[in-house]
Amino acid sequence: MSDIAGKPGETGADALCDTLLANDVDVCFANPGTSEMHFVAALDRKQQMRCVLGLFEGVVTGAADGYARMAEKPAATLLHTGPGMANALANMHNARRAFSPMVNVVGDHASYHLPMDAALTSDIDSLARPMSQYVRRIAGADDVSPATAEAVTHAMRAPGGVSTLILPADAAWGTAPQTAPVKAQLRNPTAADPARVAEAVKLLKSGGKTVLLLTGRALRADALETANAVAAATGATILAQQANARMERGAGIVPINRVPYPIDQAIAALADVDNLILVGAKSPVTFFAYPGKPSTPLPEGCNVTTLADPGDDLPGALQALAEALNAKPAPIPAAPAIPDLASGPLTPETIAITVGHRLPENAIICDESVTSGRDFFRFTWGAAKHDWLQLTGGAIGVGLPLSVGAAIACPDRKVVNLQADGSAMYTNQALWTMAREQLDICVVIFSNQRYAILHGELKGVGAGEAGKNARRMLDFDEPALNWVQMANAMGVEAARAETAEGFTDLFEKATKTKGPFLIEAMI
Amino acid sequence: MSDIAGKPGETGADALCDTLLANDVDVCFANPGTSEMHFVAALDRKQQMRCVLGLFEGVVTGAADGYARMAEKPAATLLHTGPGMANALANMHNARRAFSPMVNVVGDHASYHLPMDAALTSDIDSLARPMSQYVRRIAGADDVSPATAEAVTHAMRAPGGVSTLILPADAAWGTAPQTAPVKAQLRNPTAADPARVAEAVKLLKSGGKTVLLLTGRALRADALETANAVAAATGATILAQQANARMERGAGIVPINRVPYPIDQAIAALADVDNLILVGAKSPVTFFAYPGKPSTPLPEGCNVTTLADPGDDLPGALQALAEALNAKPAPIPAAPAIPDLASGPLTPETIAITVGHRLPENAIICDESVTSGRDFFRFTWGAAKHDWLQLTGGAIGVGLPLSVGAAIACPDRKVVNLQADGSAMYTNQALWTMAREQLDICVVIFSNQRYAILHGELKGVGAGEAGKNARRMLDFDEPALNWVQMANAMGVEAARAETAEGFTDLFEKATKTKGPFLIEAMI
Repeated sequence: MSDIAGKPGETGADALCDTLLANDVDVCFANPGTSEMHFVAALDRKQQMRCVLGLFEGVVTGAADGYARMAEKPAATLLHTGPGMANALANMHNARRAFSPMVNVVGDHASYHLPMDAALTSDIDSLARPMSQYVRRIAGADDVSPATAEAVTHAMRAPGGVSTLILPADAAWGTAPQTAPVKAQLRNPTAADPARVAEAVKLLKSGGKTVLLLTGRALRADALETANAVAAATGATILAQQANARMERGAGIVPINRVPYPIDQAIAALADVDNLILVGAKSPVTFFAYPGKPSTPLPEGCNVTTLADPGDDLPGALQALAEALNAKPAPIPAAPAIPDLASGPLTPETIAITVGHRLPENAIICDESVTSGRDFFRFTWGAAKHDWLQLTGGAIGVGLPLSVGAAIACPDRKVVNLQADGSAMYTNQALWTMAREQLDICVVIFSNQRYAILHGELKGVGAGEAGKNARRMLDFDEPALNWVQMANAMGVEAARAETAEGFTDLFEKATKTKGPFLIEAMI
Repeated sequence: MSDIAGKPGETGADALCDTLLANDVDVCFANPGTSEMHFVAALDRKQQMRCVLGLFEGVVTGAADGYARMAEKPAATLLHTGPGMANALANMHNARRAFSPMVNVVGDHASYHLPMDAALTSDIDSLARPMSQYVRRIAGADDVSPATAEAVTHAMRAPGGVSTLILPADAAWGTAPQTAPVKAQLRNPTAADPARVAEAVKLLKSGGKTVLLLTGRALRADALETANAVAAATGATILAQQANARMERGAGIVPINRVPYPIDQAIAALADVDNLILVGAKSPVTFFAYPGKPSTPLPEGCNVTTLADPGDDLPGALQALAEALNAKPAPIPAAPAIPDLASGPLTPETIAITVGHRLPENAIICDESVTSGRDFFRFTWGAAKHDWLQLTGGAIGVGLPLSVGAAIACPDRKVVNLQADGSAMYTNQALWTMAREQLDICVVIFSNQRYAILHGELKGVGAGEAGKNARRMLDFDEPALNWVQMANAMGVEAARAETAEGFTDLFEKATKTKGPFLIEAMI
């Protein structure tokens, strides 16, 4: 201990904090353990670092994902050894699919203690790789600053990625060199490739039906206006990927549809497409395989070409395309009108209508509504301007944590979490962090007390209707969950809505006041 | 779809069920998704398979661990793709450290769909290996039965292990051969090695202070009597590992101490040991490394020898040792008296005393009490006969699920879960399964609203006392969790105890009635 006592500010843990701060990473979502205690101690010396506790690691990485989508820079996470990171992997998977920048710090045993195979020892490197774009085990206290800077470099490399640092305890408590923190090497996204622009122009002028498939920063208001100009000039259609990390929507923004999730609807939506031009997007594949059905909803013979890869400058590529076509700004298509506010039975549709009418200006919608939310899009094109964040990797349990992160990134904006109940259970601990940090979030739980999606999937894969035993695996109505009690248990105010007008009242109340509020929507 | 419709009982999923059942695996803890729908459908045709739903995957594998420790055979688990298994890994880690037999079935995309890299695709094989003793990707419907049998073979190979099968959806829905299910190759544990017995005899007669370090089946009542005879004949001490999957304790059973968790206590407990004889146990190492302290609590020069490996016949090895020493059955040392029931302030100590006095005969204690439970041992040696199950891998969040599994394995025994609040949060979803299955479990939540262990560890690693920022990472008292509301939210009856006598009243009530009940102990 003698080499660290009395020398605050000189340990590897301090170097980690300093390097993160020097690279503009000043939020850390954490669920620490013994191997991370020096980092925790360093927090008392680094008041600039905002550290947010999650009571489960899935909350930590899901929050870092939501933060990154809105802040456009990474948060750090602090995780405890292999099992702690294991708990964080599902939301690292979602973040990886969202191309969210993230810097995970996973504490491990002191390097000399690893061969003892103590109880918590596991192969962290192998566990980290499948869900990380970049993994590095820190070699010692003098490696902390270079390794951290490189992790930020990789996280920030367009389109963004998940970096995971493994920090042995002796690197955290060892004496670090007293040099300036290493800076990450940031670079701009790659500019549009003229040959690809020319190829896209050729297809757009070919006369066939052409779809521009957008994702990433192509789904921001300005880029959508450029895409709209291209569409108006050429007769092409613009469409978003099925799942997107973030898109700007609402009044005054070009309305855009998504590729549907259900395979038959996706096939129908793309049935007559001759040319598909990818703008940061992935060529569509079905979410699952279904017996006797294809793995892609694209029609045979559809011509797929890439205007821009995910890491390219997507708005710039659209701009280059518009210029090559001499496409002029076009009027923004009118958003479909929102039906009148409903009364009577509460349904996903009436909830969507209320949200469409009553969404506060500049809100952030974190959408893990799964089946209940499939109709939401068509009722909210005309809502107040907002950002829409989706489940990108299919690993359920992201919605509540994503809201935590978005709310911390944007404290002046209301976050609305549209949340399926089954998925909410996975990371219900996020409610506590909402209360602890008094985050401005309205959680809407769609309480249908079942994995509704699986009833459909059971049929979809040809396995028929659920019998008694199967139903016990798909429904959780016995006993019913009580989300008001669940929220209250973690310090979040909550109320139940049983009618459309009751929901509207609660939604108005929740959006007009600051702080966390949960509405249990009994659909 | 045409190759499966109308042919129930012939898919790979049916073969999986049939093979599990033919090998006496008749409980399945599950959290399924689309890729597992054929297995779910098969459940309607296989009424012998008891399928238990968990609303989070950590519940599923933690329950399978508890089941295996008590049933001495594996349960199956059903998990959905890489992220679903990722959520299950922490409790797979604990099960691996407990040598609990377990057969995980992880559904994956259809094999031909994997190259499409759909959203949920991940490298399941790499994720599974660190936490599994055996991993196999099923090659097709005709491989399901042989693969499943081999997974059971490996799970049941002494001392027991975690097997993970990856089941592509097309192997589940494809047509399986109509042959008898393949049987696992079971074999008995290895008998004691006479050379090792002779070496142990030599040490025991050498005159130095000798400790027999026991774990596994050496901690059952009969084996403990044998060890007691050896100790009486030789002056040796018997001691259990720090963490053990299961031990028999209480009135009429040889009382045995454990190696303490805190490093200084462990060093003190072993300070004068000349010879250490391992009976299925691992040579002691410290749980974490601490600056300036050794990685093992054993004194320098301590002679460590192995009587039996974890997979050996441990009671048989002790028996062979007793015979070689001509050791006769010795009186069972008297258990220390339990202090009188307390009144007044509720503390971990008064809770231990109540449990010592009021534990029902033949109860199962699932202990994840962490810091609050360190004094429990000394107050419960004289309690009614019981089994004591510990956190074996250090991955917190096992206690509630472990109780679920133990209760399903032993429906006629009362399960008492001694549960730290911070750890309980990780897998709080287990409460719902307790309610759904009406399991006979008394959960005692030690509500100290902090990761108490980490306050000690912060000092232990030389990082000092927690300041304001650090404390926000270690305490979760703002807001306080309300475990009564949490339990009620998931359908479990609950009450709060604020005094020693209040706790005793509630514990008596909970142990005298059947079904789940949670006591929030405000310590």
